[in-house]
Amino acid sequence: MESKDSVTIVVFSGELDKALAAFNIANTAASMGMKVSMFFTFWGLSVIQKGKSGRGKKDTLQYMMGKMNRSGASKLKLSKMNMMGMGGKSMKSLMKKYRMPSLEEMITLAREQGVEFVACTTSIALMGLEKGDFIDEVDRFAGASTYLGLASESNVNLFI
Amino acid sequence: MESKDSVTIVVFSGELDKALAAFNIANTAASMGMKVSMFFTFWGLSVIQKGKSGRGKKDTLQYMMGKMNRSGASKLKLSKMNMMGMGGKSMKSLMKKYRMPSLEEMITLAREQGVEFVACTTSIALMGLEKGDFIDEVDRFAGASTYLGLASESNVNLFI
Amino acid sequence: MESKDSVTIVVFSGELDKALAAFNIANTAASMGMKVSMFFTFWGLSVIQKGKSGRGKKDTLQYMMGKMNRSGASKLKLSKMNMMGMGGKSMKSLMKKYRMPSLEEMITLAREQGVEFVACTTSIALMGLEKGDFIDEVDRFAGASTYLGLASESNVNLFI
Repeated sequence: MESKDSVTIVVFSGELDKALAAFNIANTAASMGMKVSMFFTFWGLSVIQKGKSGRGKKDTLQYMMGKMNRSGASKLKLSKMNMMGMGGKSMKSLMKKYRMPSLEEMITLAREQGVEFVACTTSIALMGLEKGDFIDEVDRFAGASTYLGLASESNVNLFI
Repeated sequence: MESKDSVTIVVFSGELDKALAAFNIANTAASMGMKVSMFFTFWGLSVIQKGKSGRGKKDTLQYMMGKMNRSGASKLKLSKMNMMGMGGKSMKSLMKKYRMPSLEEMITLAREQGVEFVACTTSIALMGLEKGDFIDEVDRFAGASTYLGLASESNVNLFI
Repeated sequence: MESKDSVTIVVFSGELDKALAAFNIANTAASMGMKVSMFFTFWGLSVIQKGKSGRGKKDTLQYMMGKMNRSGASKLKLSKMNMMGMGGKSMKSLMKKYRMPSLEEMITLAREQGVEFVACTTSIALMGLEKGDFIDEVDRFAGASTYLGLASESNVNLFI
């Protein structure tokens, strides 16, 4: 049964600004009593990776893919105007000034509010990553059919 | 009550091509009698800014953020192949040749058709902007909960 | 009548990673028995172009636009870390290693499963392309109103 009180968000992008937008929507929805599921795929996996994951891979190609994607929430860049990291630092500094939560705090808050984190198994294989590379907050490792099952029951379905 | 005749669009991106896509969908939906709300956030705020807004800010960081974002609809760039503005100019010139409306005309048309413009207060604070920096067509300054209220009543919800 | 078993995907982006994500969702949904429509617009048109289409255009501007966009599914780049094509090659090589279908195979599979391909007429004109520039699998050439008609009947509507 479809519910208008249910939200799914595909987090495809690994950039700070898009991750902030995704978690702002997720946390606000959860605080309004809506059921929220986030499905992390491709570059979006970097949002929920541990800081130093994805190293020491067996395969040069996968090493490279893992390297692209190894950062974790604290090291994401802006999608534009990143300016060697300066744009991202500015944004973080402004967020602190206005007492907005950081991305890491938003991730913690999302979990406390029961937002579900699903990591895409297909992307994980492709990027040469492993389950142990992800933060403990991840609830499920699953593929597109799990996502579609959730989305078909939800009214607000976003791809970010 | 959810309506299949209702559309929400989060305009996150500040690029010309994505803004054109957003307004094309919004205006077509409105002309079909659907209720349309556009929620401008992050870089998308630049689409509804006045031409010279965001200058003279008190704070270096915010000045920089404002500078990134100060353009207004007439100065947006393409998301790719912008080629120092040449790609954007080509597109505008082709749009004129084929008698397609410009982005500014599409914004005017959207308002005439009753499309609702909501500007995200969280992003506005973060970017060091103020209400006076935006075009008069903006109906509401509000946050993610307003967006989610609208989206949960709508069937077509896009993040652009 | 809205159906929770119906999916629409606007393919706006012309990048390999985003195209893979779009077709992964489309094919999984189709295999679950859902009705799927893909609406290709702007850069997304390059996903369904024939390999050498868009050349020999009359107009310098359109030639340039066509050139940007002439690749076809086999030549798409990654949205980030493309590294002069190396990132894209790595991904394709890893996909082969893990016996994942290539983008071209995913397009064929989508058609076999009855996924509908709609190409946006407005973008086609703007880019100086013609119907003959597209692969035979395209079902319809239509505009935003066709898309909105499909989307208003569907529960899962994504913009990629």
